Amino acid sequence: MSAPKPSSRTGSRAAGQPTGSRSPGKSHRRFLLPFQGEALSPPPVWLMRQAGRYLPEYRATRDEAGSFLDLCYSPRHATEVTLQPIRRYGFDAAILFADILVVPDALGQKVTFEAGEGPKLEPIRTAADLARLDPAKTGGKFSLICETVERLRGELPDETALIGFCGAPWTVATYMVQGEGSSDQAEARLWAYRDPQGFQKLIDTLVETSIDYLDRQVKAGADALQIFDTWAGTLPDNEFDKWVVAPTKAIVAALKERHPEVPIIGFPRGAGGAALWYVDETGVDGIGCDTAMPPYMMSEAFEDEDVVVQGNLDPLLLVAGGDALDERVDEILELMEGRRFIFNLGHGIVPQTPPENVARLVHRVRGE
Amino acid sequence: MSAPKPSSRTGSRAAGQPTGSRSPGKSHRRFLLPFQGEALSPPPVWLMRQAGRYLPEYRATRDEAGSFLDLCYSPRHATEVTLQPIRRYGFDAAILFADILVVPDALGQKVTFEAGEGPKLEPIRTAADLARLDPAKTGGKFSLICETVERLRGELPDETALIGFCGAPWTVATYMVQGEGSSDQAEARLWAYRDPQGFQKLIDTLVETSIDYLDRQVKAGADALQIFDTWAGTLPDNEFDKWVVAPTKAIVAALKERHPEVPIIGFPRGAGGAALWYVDETGVDGIGCDTAMPPYMMSEAFEDEDVVVQGNLDPLLLVAGGDALDERVDEILELMEGRRFIFNLGHGIVPQTPPENVARLVHRVRGE
Repeated sequence: MSAPKPSSRTGSRAAGQPTGSRSPGKSHRRFLLPFQGEALSPPPVWLMRQAGRYLPEYRATRDEAGSFLDLCYSPRHATEVTLQPIRRYGFDAAILFADILVVPDALGQKVTFEAGEGPKLEPIRTAADLARLDPAKTGGKFSLICETVERLRGELPDETALIGFCGAPWTVATYMVQGEGSSDQAEARLWAYRDPQGFQKLIDTLVETSIDYLDRQVKAGADALQIFDTWAGTLPDNEFDKWVVAPTKAIVAALKERHPEVPIIGFPRGAGGAALWYVDETGVDGIGCDTAMPPYMMSEAFEDEDVVVQGNLDPLLLVAGGDALDERVDEILELMEGRRFIFNLGHGIVPQTPPENVARLVHRVRGE
Repeated sequence: MSAPKPSSRTGSRAAGQPTGSRSPGKSHRRFLLPFQGEALSPPPVWLMRQAGRYLPEYRATRDEAGSFLDLCYSPRHATEVTLQPIRRYGFDAAILFADILVVPDALGQKVTFEAGEGPKLEPIRTAADLARLDPAKTGGKFSLICETVERLRGELPDETALIGFCGAPWTVATYMVQGEGSSDQAEARLWAYRDPQGFQKLIDTLVETSIDYLDRQVKAGADALQIFDTWAGTLPDNEFDKWVVAPTKAIVAALKERHPEVPIIGFPRGAGGAALWYVDETGVDGIGCDTAMPPYMMSEAFEDEDVVVQGNLDPLLLVAGGDALDERVDEILELMEGRRFIFNLGHGIVPQTPPENVARLVHRVRGE
């Protein structure tokens, strides 16, 4: 087995080097300060899927835009839905509204979103399917996304950071190969076992395309980047190394070469203890923690890795609300007191979330 | 947050006490020897869901039995399908053929299995729903299951151990509340947040019923027990303590009081690093490791906990077969050499598994 026990940092970044300092001075965007070495109290706060179906104004804009992908590719509408939660809650960061399946769509795979059914893709299973993907053709669609980034940087309050993102190659590949969401990602995992070289070509295409996509987002005005690896948690250690760690490391290295000042947050959902190894090897500046990440990992283990910790309230507590929500917010704040920390959820906001509970959360985090 | 960093054993069992020795002498069933302190080479081997749809003879027996629950409650048919993989592969242990939803069914909840759709239950969401569950009525259905155990003990080769099992209260509750399988167990988790006392009543009912059910299985002839907690991995640490650790601890304690010689294996799937805490607190004798369990946990961390390790080959490698399968089997054997170890999968056999790959695995493990 190839993944050794995580040890102190020996990986891509030198220890003790605060990252993400865009200028010699401190950023005026609070969200960026933890990456410049500051432990803030209260911590910056934003929430995954903060622009989404739980907001009535989002539903109205989406209805106006047409299909879900139409919304992603309409700079005017995508800008509007990105701004909606900032207006309501004044989060410290906005995240570009788009979808991780923009990348396969831009590469030429057929992607549709049926209402209430999740995404459907024409599955890629063979070398011939793979050969039809064309990184050279992504420019048009990526330009639309980057126009949203530019508009956002113009319209966001100056103190609000803007996060760009992509899906990690492994997670995007699971959808591309399965043709839809799945609980076990069986088709991608089987391909990787049966034909690792062929599967590597798909991953390489995604690495190359993701680098280009994120580079464009930064040039358009993104202050930070997040790489979403939703399905990182089901892989055995050697497969985790090959399909999660190595591609992410390649993306981070390429982005760091071009934009050393832009912090990158990795979110290997479900990775548990392997997240230490992931942080050590990939060189990410921040680690997104899912709901099940043990507290000692968040407060101690990652500290040794010199990485900003982000997370990890259960999105279902935001549905439940009440004292249970307040108590858990307080527990997380107490646990992370004095650490370089960004408050977030452990997974995205779910549609049935009452918007007033989000306000309650933000007030609680800020001690208002 | 309530779960401290796992430390050396301070929990339910004294350190250094080999468990599971039914008699003063060594068992003649190899499967039981690791629980008596022996590290075997080659290790004992059995596979989760070794009786199942990948076997043509299983499909034939199931068609004859009627519905899936009919099969579970027919001692003749359930005995037959339990024996089928033993005849083919000579596994060191057989596992009683049944389903974790036998418990809610016996408690009076309506449970059905639609072909290709998974289980459907009339969901339990209120105190009134809960009040209709009746532990006093479980005897009839549990007797049918235990008749299967008795028949099996009579028909199995004498050297083959027989494993009884139940679903852990948390995992069974997720189905009872959701009414079906789900990727996020949202309904059970929401109930637990909104009304922890009410949800505790459901868990208590399941603890009490599971103790009775497992006690009966042991009295009928089970040599060992496994507690399946398939959905343990999505819970935050404090919820993991309340709904996974505490109920399992109660079940283990009650069974240990009645049958101190019978080893109990816990399988908190997806628990990652929290599995150390789980082992320490619950007092299980064996820990089932899922596919994503990091190797250093299997070979080092659990060693300090004096627990038998079981796992963790990816079931999809058993579909893929070939050199990739052999190489991974060898890696796991090498990793666990000299440890008290039982070879198994990290999750159940999937239906599309070629039976010849299972034979290949068993030969490889045994160095034949």
